[in-house]
Amino acid sequence: MSGVIGQGVSVDSLPLRENLRGKSAYGAPQLTVPVQLNTNENPHPPTQALVDDVAESVRHAATQLHRYPDRDAVELRTALAEYLTGQTGFDVDASNVWAANGSNEILQQLLQAFGGPGRSSLGFVPSYSMHPIIASGTQTEWIDAKRRADFSLDIDFAVSSIAERDPDVVFVTSPNNPTGHSIPTEDLRRILDAARGIVILDEAYAEFSAQPSAIGLIAEYPTKLVVSRTMSKAFAFAGGRLGYLVAAPAVVEAMLLVRLPYHLSVVTQAAALAALRHASETLGSVERLSAERDRVMARLTELGFDVIPSDANFVLFGRFTSAAATWKRYLEQGVLIRDVGIDGYLRTTIGLDSENDRFLEVSASLVQSELEDIRPIVTNEHVETNR
Amino acid sequence: MSGVIGQGVSVDSLPLRENLRGKSAYGAPQLTVPVQLNTNENPHPPTQALVDDVAESVRHAATQLHRYPDRDAVELRTALAEYLTGQTGFDVDASNVWAANGSNEILQQLLQAFGGPGRSSLGFVPSYSMHPIIASGTQTEWIDAKRRADFSLDIDFAVSSIAERDPDVVFVTSPNNPTGHSIPTEDLRRILDAARGIVILDEAYAEFSAQPSAIGLIAEYPTKLVVSRTMSKAFAFAGGRLGYLVAAPAVVEAMLLVRLPYHLSVVTQAAALAALRHASETLGSVERLSAERDRVMARLTELGFDVIPSDANFVLFGRFTSAAATWKRYLEQGVLIRDVGIDGYLRTTIGLDSENDRFLEVSASLVQSELEDIRPIVTNEHVETNR
Repeated sequence: MSGVIGQGVSVDSLPLRENLRGKSAYGAPQLTVPVQLNTNENPHPPTQALVDDVAESVRHAATQLHRYPDRDAVELRTALAEYLTGQTGFDVDASNVWAANGSNEILQQLLQAFGGPGRSSLGFVPSYSMHPIIASGTQTEWIDAKRRADFSLDIDFAVSSIAERDPDVVFVTSPNNPTGHSIPTEDLRRILDAARGIVILDEAYAEFSAQPSAIGLIAEYPTKLVVSRTMSKAFAFAGGRLGYLVAAPAVVEAMLLVRLPYHLSVVTQAAALAALRHASETLGSVERLSAERDRVMARLTELGFDVIPSDANFVLFGRFTSAAATWKRYLEQGVLIRDVGIDGYLRTTIGLDSENDRFLEVSASLVQSELEDIRPIVTNEHVETNR
Repeated sequence: MSGVIGQGVSVDSLPLRENLRGKSAYGAPQLTVPVQLNTNENPHPPTQALVDDVAESVRHAATQLHRYPDRDAVELRTALAEYLTGQTGFDVDASNVWAANGSNEILQQLLQAFGGPGRSSLGFVPSYSMHPIIASGTQTEWIDAKRRADFSLDIDFAVSSIAERDPDVVFVTSPNNPTGHSIPTEDLRRILDAARGIVILDEAYAEFSAQPSAIGLIAEYPTKLVVSRTMSKAFAFAGGRLGYLVAAPAVVEAMLLVRLPYHLSVVTQAAALAALRHASETLGSVERLSAERDRVMARLTELGFDVIPSDANFVLFGRFTSAAATWKRYLEQGVLIRDVGIDGYLRTTIGLDSENDRFLEVSASLVQSELEDIRPIVTNEHVETNR
């Protein structure tokens, strides 16, 4: 038995960057349990027609696997622009769109271009936890600006935070993950007016919201506003890893300066094109999920939980003495939800009807269990976030 | 006609990072000409069996497109480890392997972990032009160390450069792109002994070389040596975008701290697994390409060109009064080769037999044309690089 090559050497013995020492990897536990409601996936599997189209598109593309892909993914960006024009009602052109391997890569490229060492980014927490992580990965300073105790955005405080800290990049998430609120257009406008640099509006969950897309403001703020989106949620394409942004063509040109050449494989481009062709059938699930979200919110409220109003495919609810302990109780009942690091609250993704039923069943049983750490704390006050 | 959203705003009006201002995007022209020999692709298309396997594997994976992929790509890394064990003769474990969207992303992750602001990287130029670009993209200082005038590596000079400049990361490319040389093991050992930080041995073209893989040295230098590889070349999988590294498990753990979560799609993982199942038939092309390379080198030499000995699937040849002018002459004849920015030299990829025939035909006609800028300059001296 010779053992594994290089085994016995620890990460600490490597010349790792100082800011990474002692860190642990990001990511929800990838556990296999009966009901998985922890990563805001769309629970509806692709239709057979979509699976067939993906397979046949990839079969066709695979004959050219020995060649590099179209570096600028023009066909895919054209299809995304067409989808956006239909979905948002704004006339989006392929030159307004840039695509990458998930919106995480989009955000990383944006920070490479507009953030980086000596520059700063500001976000309103609690929000998508990858924003500060990607800031750190691109050596961009991160500034936490707090939301209200009920997780809504205090726009006056937001504007004064921007004025005071003068960040190079501002992150706004709408609907906000993990709290579910959307930002009203007039508030977004105030942020855009206050910001000196780039404002990234993360619309990962936009299709679940009735709010108009911020894409409509790009013409007015072409050097400031970038809207990032993803096919992971509404498109039920989390496994396909396709994120994109919408902005002035100049922003897309800036992305060409930082993107790794040939970052999007022919297989990814072909699969995403197929998924876009089936947009109307896939997006049918969005309405069903929104209706289910409303049902889950109503029932949780009825059970005595504090429910944060959501415009997305997840719900933040509480309050618990120990969110970590309650998370474990759900897991013990075969329901995996998410402890997002907010004191007293947990987030559940809206799943299939039967999954939501099971989640609500467990929620009801936990309430009845009268366990000190589970019983919802009914209060009008909200705790501060601890992230 | 309302025009494109945000049109008329220039990149210069954006708050772009200072180091990106005035830069242009990396990349060879993506032109469609009869004979494309410019990006070191493997010219042999995938077999029908491989295309079928990719399509069916993706069909199977596509039923789970609504779910996030395995974040750590364990099955794929296991298959890569098995391939490497067979190909290199060293017993590689899945915990020694990390995979990403092309070796560019591998190199970017390595520099995020071991380079970055306040740190430096050193490479022996001319070499793979993405190394300094990725250094710049991760805000890592880049140090050019020169090769000999004949492009071979002067190991004494290399070692003294490392001692003098004390870089955090050293890049060695073997076989070296675009010159074709491999580094002898004893020279690599001297570099590893001299280096304080990480040594990235870029083995993108390893399968074309008879040299043993540097993987055999990892056990001896577990905190220093990282071998990066790609499926783009020998595997004829450039379109699939699959790069990987081999190192001590601790290095792989470090990658988990900087990788974007879910960076590898289910589609990419499925397609790469299929390609690995067909490794033996695909790698049959490597031998044919190596034989063709030797034929091309011999004929170019016969024609009077200065030919740099190559261990890879490309050949650097010259000398020309103006490489740019000669590049254009080839293009006019329908042959697209690569101007890699080395004074007096051009690089041709080894294509199909018929493509190489055509390339050699054009080469012969250009020699006979007696044009001042085309006629090979026969000399024992070599010019300095200008990159």
